[in-house]
Amino acid sequence: MEKFYDVAVIGGGIIGSAIAYYLAKEKISIAVFDSGQISGKTTSAAAGMLGAHSECDDLEVFYPFARRSQQSYSILEQELKELTGIDIRRTPGGIYKLAFNETEKQELGPLCGLTTVEWQDSRYIRQTESAISNDIIGAAYIEDDVHVLPQAVSRGFSQGAQMYGAAVHEYTHVYDIQKNGIGYILKTQAGEFAVQQVIIASGVWSNSFFQQLGLENRIVPVKGECLSVWKDGISLQHTLFHEHCYIVPRNDGTLVIGATMVENDWSEQPTIGGIEQMISKAKTMLPSVGGMKVASFWAGLRPQTFDGRPFIGFHPEDNGILFAAGHFRNGILLAPATGQMMRDFVLQREVDEKWVEAFKIDRKNYCLV
Amino acid sequence: MEKFYDVAVIGGGIIGSAIAYYLAKEKISIAVFDSGQISGKTTSAAAGMLGAHSECDDLEVFYPFARRSQQSYSILEQELKELTGIDIRRTPGGIYKLAFNETEKQELGPLCGLTTVEWQDSRYIRQTESAISNDIIGAAYIEDDVHVLPQAVSRGFSQGAQMYGAAVHEYTHVYDIQKNGIGYILKTQAGEFAVQQVIIASGVWSNSFFQQLGLENRIVPVKGECLSVWKDGISLQHTLFHEHCYIVPRNDGTLVIGATMVENDWSEQPTIGGIEQMISKAKTMLPSVGGMKVASFWAGLRPQTFDGRPFIGFHPEDNGILFAAGHFRNGILLAPATGQMMRDFVLQREVDEKWVEAFKIDRKNYCLV
Amino acid sequence: MEKFYDVAVIGGGIIGSAIAYYLAKEKISIAVFDSGQISGKTTSAAAGMLGAHSECDDLEVFYPFARRSQQSYSILEQELKELTGIDIRRTPGGIYKLAFNETEKQELGPLCGLTTVEWQDSRYIRQTESAISNDIIGAAYIEDDVHVLPQAVSRGFSQGAQMYGAAVHEYTHVYDIQKNGIGYILKTQAGEFAVQQVIIASGVWSNSFFQQLGLENRIVPVKGECLSVWKDGISLQHTLFHEHCYIVPRNDGTLVIGATMVENDWSEQPTIGGIEQMISKAKTMLPSVGGMKVASFWAGLRPQTFDGRPFIGFHPEDNGILFAAGHFRNGILLAPATGQMMRDFVLQREVDEKWVEAFKIDRKNYCLV
Amino acid sequence: MEKFYDVAVIGGGIIGSAIAYYLAKEKISIAVFDSGQISGKTTSAAAGMLGAHSECDDLEVFYPFARRSQQSYSILEQELKELTGIDIRRTPGGIYKLAFNETEKQELGPLCGLTTVEWQDSRYIRQTESAISNDIIGAAYIEDDVHVLPQAVSRGFSQGAQMYGAAVHEYTHVYDIQKNGIGYILKTQAGEFAVQQVIIASGVWSNSFFQQLGLENRIVPVKGECLSVWKDGISLQHTLFHEHCYIVPRNDGTLVIGATMVENDWSEQPTIGGIEQMISKAKTMLPSVGGMKVASFWAGLRPQTFDGRPFIGFHPEDNGILFAAGHFRNGILLAPATGQMMRDFVLQREVDEKWVEAFKIDRKNYCLV
Ligand SMILES: Cc1cc2nc3c(=O)[nH]c(=O)nc-3n(C[C@H](O)[C@H](O)[C@H](O)COP(=O)(O)OP(=O)(O)OC[C@H]3O[C@@H](n4cnc5c(N)ncnc54)[C@H](O)[C@@H]3O)c2cc1C
Ligand SMILES: Cc1cc2nc3c(=O)[nH]c(=O)nc-3n(C[C@H](O)[C@H](O)[C@H](O)COP(=O)(O)OP(=O)(O)OC[C@H]3O[C@@H](n4cnc5c(N)ncnc54)[C@H](O)[C@@H]3O)c2cc1C
Ligand SMILES: Cc1cc2nc3c(=O)[nH]c(=O)nc-3n(C[C@H](O)[C@H](O)[C@H](O)COP(=O)(O)OP(=O)(O)OC[C@H]3O[C@@H](n4cnc5c(N)ncnc54)[C@H](O)[C@@H]3O)c2cc1C
Ligand SMILES: Cc1cc2nc3c(=O)[nH]c(=O)nc-3n(C[C@H](O)[C@H](O)[C@H](O)COP(=O)(O)OP(=O)(O)OC[C@H]3O[C@@H](n4cnc5c(N)ncnc54)[C@H](O)[C@@H]3O)c2cc1C
Repeated sequence: MEKFYDVAVIGGGIIGSAIAYYLAKEKISIAVFDSGQISGKTTSAAAGMLGAHSECDDLEVFYPFARRSQQSYSILEQELKELTGIDIRRTPGGIYKLAFNETEKQELGPLCGLTTVEWQDSRYIRQTESAISNDIIGAAYIEDDVHVLPQAVSRGFSQGAQMYGAAVHEYTHVYDIQKNGIGYILKTQAGEFAVQQVIIASGVWSNSFFQQLGLENRIVPVKGECLSVWKDGISLQHTLFHEHCYIVPRNDGTLVIGATMVENDWSEQPTIGGIEQMISKAKTMLPSVGGMKVASFWAGLRPQTFDGRPFIGFHPEDNGILFAAGHFRNGILLAPATGQMMRDFVLQREVDEKWVEAFKIDRKNYCLV
Repeated sequence: MEKFYDVAVIGGGIIGSAIAYYLAKEKISIAVFDSGQISGKTTSAAAGMLGAHSECDDLEVFYPFARRSQQSYSILEQELKELTGIDIRRTPGGIYKLAFNETEKQELGPLCGLTTVEWQDSRYIRQTESAISNDIIGAAYIEDDVHVLPQAVSRGFSQGAQMYGAAVHEYTHVYDIQKNGIGYILKTQAGEFAVQQVIIASGVWSNSFFQQLGLENRIVPVKGECLSVWKDGISLQHTLFHEHCYIVPRNDGTLVIGATMVENDWSEQPTIGGIEQMISKAKTMLPSVGGMKVASFWAGLRPQTFDGRPFIGFHPEDNGILFAAGHFRNGILLAPATGQMMRDFVLQREVDEKWVEAFKIDRKNYCLV
Repeated sequence: MEKFYDVAVIGGGIIGSAIAYYLAKEKISIAVFDSGQISGKTTSAAAGMLGAHSECDDLEVFYPFARRSQQSYSILEQELKELTGIDIRRTPGGIYKLAFNETEKQELGPLCGLTTVEWQDSRYIRQTESAISNDIIGAAYIEDDVHVLPQAVSRGFSQGAQMYGAAVHEYTHVYDIQKNGIGYILKTQAGEFAVQQVIIASGVWSNSFFQQLGLENRIVPVKGECLSVWKDGISLQHTLFHEHCYIVPRNDGTLVIGATMVENDWSEQPTIGGIEQMISKAKTMLPSVGGMKVASFWAGLRPQTFDGRPFIGFHPEDNGILFAAGHFRNGILLAPATGQMMRDFVLQREVDEKWVEAFKIDRKNYCLV
Repeated sequence: MEKFYDVAVIGGGIIGSAIAYYLAKEKISIAVFDSGQISGKTTSAAAGMLGAHSECDDLEVFYPFARRSQQSYSILEQELKELTGIDIRRTPGGIYKLAFNETEKQELGPLCGLTTVEWQDSRYIRQTESAISNDIIGAAYIEDDVHVLPQAVSRGFSQGAQMYGAAVHEYTHVYDIQKNGIGYILKTQAGEFAVQQVIIASGVWSNSFFQQLGLENRIVPVKGECLSVWKDGISLQHTLFHEHCYIVPRNDGTLVIGATMVENDWSEQPTIGGIEQMISKAKTMLPSVGGMKVASFWAGLRPQTFDGRPFIGFHPEDNGILFAAGHFRNGILLAPATGQMMRDFVLQREVDEKWVEAFKIDRKNYCLV
């Protein structure tokens, strides 16, 4: 038996790292295991929008959860900078959801009903964003949906957790979890580890654990392909969004353009067909983008569940096992709230009942997104 | 005065390196100067097709020159491998110039008239190349127009030249050439060099020398944007060519897709608009290419002259100055013949009069391509 | 049940790809599964020396096996080029095992006893290799131990297998193998597959399968860190070797410098301490290397068994399961012979009894290297 | 004649970009010309320390200039973020100049005499920086010498200038400046431009202009080689400095290690000998750095003048020509003050006489650093 920890987290993406951070802060003896490099998978592919308002069709449960998480980011920014020296690159500006015609404007109606969202017409928008397409008639403006640099957040969580005493085992694939008295043995390529509780935060790769642990839950990959360009000369202060395509202005002088939705494709590399599609969509929003220089391209797998909501909670029959996986297109947004919720589960603190029900592993109410 | 050489070559792309190779082999004391890394500019961007037959509209002069150069490659391959250990990756297969309709077939008529070219119909082609578009009606097949890896050829020439005693000064920008008695002083960022003869092989950047040396000649950049993908599973034995777009199967498992033609653009980076265009053209030839994974992308500047032919020859009024620049889309193909021709000029050997006339600096007959 | 194959190979490194190639050639219905990209792991990190003579301390069994494999490479080179268009970059020159003093010379004695090895003294060597250190007194010269480009071989095998009908599933991690009647079910992240026979070729990551299948066998990673440089100006025709460090002259103008031996380190990234060590060793062999420009750096994990010999053979109690893993520092060398041996096992052809015994899974005779 | 501008800046590194920014802000019609990409040369290689205190041996002139520039950075940070969206990554922490013995401590004496510098002993330092070498006896702590991300500053200046109306011509090498009536013609590869005033800010490549314009001034390159690593687990809040080697903790989770001093080497690529040297020095300051993973490596050329001070001022005989070049190891630090000073020269505002004298082109008092 190599080592002993109270809690093991399997997966060092943004979700696993957030959990480790919030638990280590409470002086829990915790270790993170990742098959490869910390934040090297889906997390490193994300655009980093904190798009809480995209979930406003569920004002009862999911939206408040998302907003709570979004709000945590302002404290977090300071906390991580002081503790680890890492800047998570929280960048103001917010999102413009563009409308090119009346139908699209009407579709944005419910969104614009929220007090935090404002309809702005084309002329007004083009005063600050003169590079936007002439064809828009206006946009829903969401000031609060700012963005961060996902890898920086995840590395910040992970280094912060280590400052608080957590262990991080990179390149340590866990292939089996075995019950052992009141605890568990993790079988990894680097040996065995004994722990009291296990948290599975393996993103789209969590299926093998659901299955080994006797659960029917499944996560389906939805591949997203992206590219980035050098924003030369033009100004762009806001994220642009239209028909699943977005342009995010990073604070290093690049624009991130994303992302395709390819269901059930496990390959983590972009195809040129996907790239072509993104370029053509981006040009409809920001015509001058076609003349900008490529900086890079990549792909990642969004972990999708049957109802578009993450699995966050206990194994239905085993209190020693918890899950936090399936954050689909919102894992960056939801990482702080997920980390806090898992901390409260482990420390047996109170957790909002609505959220417990909404995200529990054995929920049945299909509400497909 | 730092150093003395008989001959200085300004530019270490494939043209300058070829010249250095053929002269060093004759024991001429020679030095190559390059602003940056050897073969780091246009040469490194080329696809490497030895497309002599693309120039068959000029069967009198240019085509024979191109064929001579193409044929030199078989000896060269062996020579450079033995001398330097570098493999230039000469890859058989040749080119299919595709026709999608009768008009295009007719346009290929003159080409197919050559004994080295053969018309093949769709059905026949698809026996070996099953991945080609169903929409082609056939193609002109040119077996001899194989391809090489341009950087490998250029590095091979350069290392070979060094084995024979040449000096190679990387990161040594030449900014002035001054007459000094019977020779010249090269002013470079790394000091001055005295030489007897100067050869300008600075590709698209040769204009400053034309001007400094009192000549009206101009070279215009025609930017070409490319990308490469991993050829997964499918077989492709031949280069495909249609409407300025080609797909070249490299012998490392990638396909090179090129290239746009953007006149007067000096930027050496691809725009995403250019990349989009290439992807969409490539899909018409090889539909499955859209599903292949991006390997990389890049751009380079073809050095275009007023009539599409290179400038190879003496300064009209100064025998100490020679030029070898402006090889447009054929510099890889033409490098051996250009190197040999320059060697013969310097050594005062005989050179085919037709070629001397066709490529001389002060020619006037505009025959635009 | 998604798909059915006769044989499944788990792992698409050079070993798995070689096996797939030789079986697909015999028209066996076969599929390769890899967690990531084909040849993306240890195989892509190797130097590619076909160093059969390094194993000459075992002239009875291992050396002949290694030599057989080495000899297969000459046919293979042609075969793969014709079938797939891929050039495996077999580069002549062979290896110099350097001696800096009499003791080292004596240690090379047994090696020099072989008819294929020749002692050469310093003066003689420096006629062709003038850049080698003045401090050597001579070297054992092994002409046959040439090198290839590992990724090219592995991609060649894989594409070749596909040409012969094999399926290749990239990004498809296999996490469980379950007995199912006379066959097996592979559980993968991309669903389940039914097969008749399973071959485990997962390199250093094979441990989880040994364990799941009830075996005690273990593979330990021995991390190797490397870098490559641009060979500028100097000539180097042979691989240099001394005290676990080597310099391999690739045929693209670079030199590969490797490799550290870090036992039990699962991280696939080089540390700067490891890089420092390699640079300092390389300088003792080739002093001018210190002035060469870095091209890249990387690391990989050699799969080491208890006795330094690979596991190649049947599961002791289950004829449907075979293993081919643990090729340590010789997987490139041994890939062809391993692929052929596995083919013969599956097709129930005769296999040399000595080799069966030497590499079988449940061998006991510890003969540590 | 293609275009007309009031002022042309030759060079788009941090110095040229700063000048363009401060002038464009004053509504001057200005254009920047760069041979390649903006900030692609020396600027992109810098560590970004604002090390004003390293120049405290000249408390009269250079130190106050450096401090003024350093202080400008706090306003600049806000200004550029608002205007361009770019974050210059100003990171607090400051510098520890380490002493390993009493002699070194004494050498730090004068520095510690400044009110902004504080001697701290080993025990105290190790309370916050536990990873530092046990062998130090203490360090001079300079809180104000924080660091920024050089490329971000330079891109920020450049984009900011464009927001204020400046033109930026990338990939536009200027090869000649010709007097033309009361103005000048710039000859560039992309055509000619007519301007009223010319500012040369071409870093280490300014020599050709000094010479063309009849001046004896010379700039010598001092190559610096660097690498960066992933700071895993350990905390490092301050820059460490000892014997020309430093370790800078970036706010993205990496450490920058630099830099060699190779005089008169124009190559912009690191050699492995240089890399080896940096690793070995870094280990003396931070022993655990040897176990960290390489992120990247690079090199750049510091522009050194005869006395270590930049040339900032008018051509002695031509008021239409100004120079701002030769910032050696302080160009990042000095960019704001240089930009402001050039603005004041162009607008004929008052400039501190001491600075005018100290940095003027035709100064004679050699005070070698
Ligand atoms: C193109 C794209 C754009 C996106 N944009 C946004 C956005 O703007 N905003 C937003 O909120 N979200 C966005 N997302 C979604 C977000 O990226 C994900 O929801 C989030 O990263 C999921 O984090 P994770 O930690 O669950 O998964 P991951 O980051 O994939 O981490 C899981 C980790 O588990 C490890 N692992 C797996 N199996 C094992 C094992 N057996 N043993 C040990 N380790 C294991 C993996 O190596 C991996 O590091 C985007 C996603 C994509 C693909
Ligand atoms: C996308 C693309 C595809 C192509 N495909 C093909 C093909 O398939 N077949 C084919 O035959 N051709 C092809 N070409 C054309 C071919 O690449 C060029 O004709 C050829 O590379 C020109 O070589 P060069 O040596 O003249 O120029 P370069 O390679 O540009 O070399 C010129 C060198 O001069 C140096 N230099 C410039 N100024 C100075 C100075 N003042 N002092 C010192 N050094 C200086 C530069 O640094 C450079 O290294 C292609 C080109 C492109 C862009
Ligand atoms: C620095 C270095 C230098 C070397 N130099 C040489 C040399 O000069 N000559 C020589 O002969 N050898 C050399 N070697 C050794 C050689 O690289 C290895 O022996 C060989 O690559 C092993 O091949 P493999 O296919 O077994 O492993 P790998 O290449 O590691 O392939 C195993 C594959 O299995 C996949 N996999 C793992 N688990 C699963 C799963 N559960 N489901 C699906 N797929 C899975 C992995 O993704 C991987 O692609 C060197 C090695 C190193 C590190
Ligand atoms: C390893 C290293 C570490 C350093 N660390 C620090 C540090 O911590 N703090 C600090 O203050 N400084 C540091 N420096 C110094 C600092 O980087 C330089 O002083 C500064 O970048 C100089 O800026 P520049 O704009 O003058 O030069 P550059 O950045 O080189 O810009 C000059 C530009 O001119 C262009 N150009 C040249 N010729 C022409 C032409 N004919 N036509 C058009 N364009 C042309 C070039 O393309 C280039 O982009 C460091 C330097 C190095 C190498």
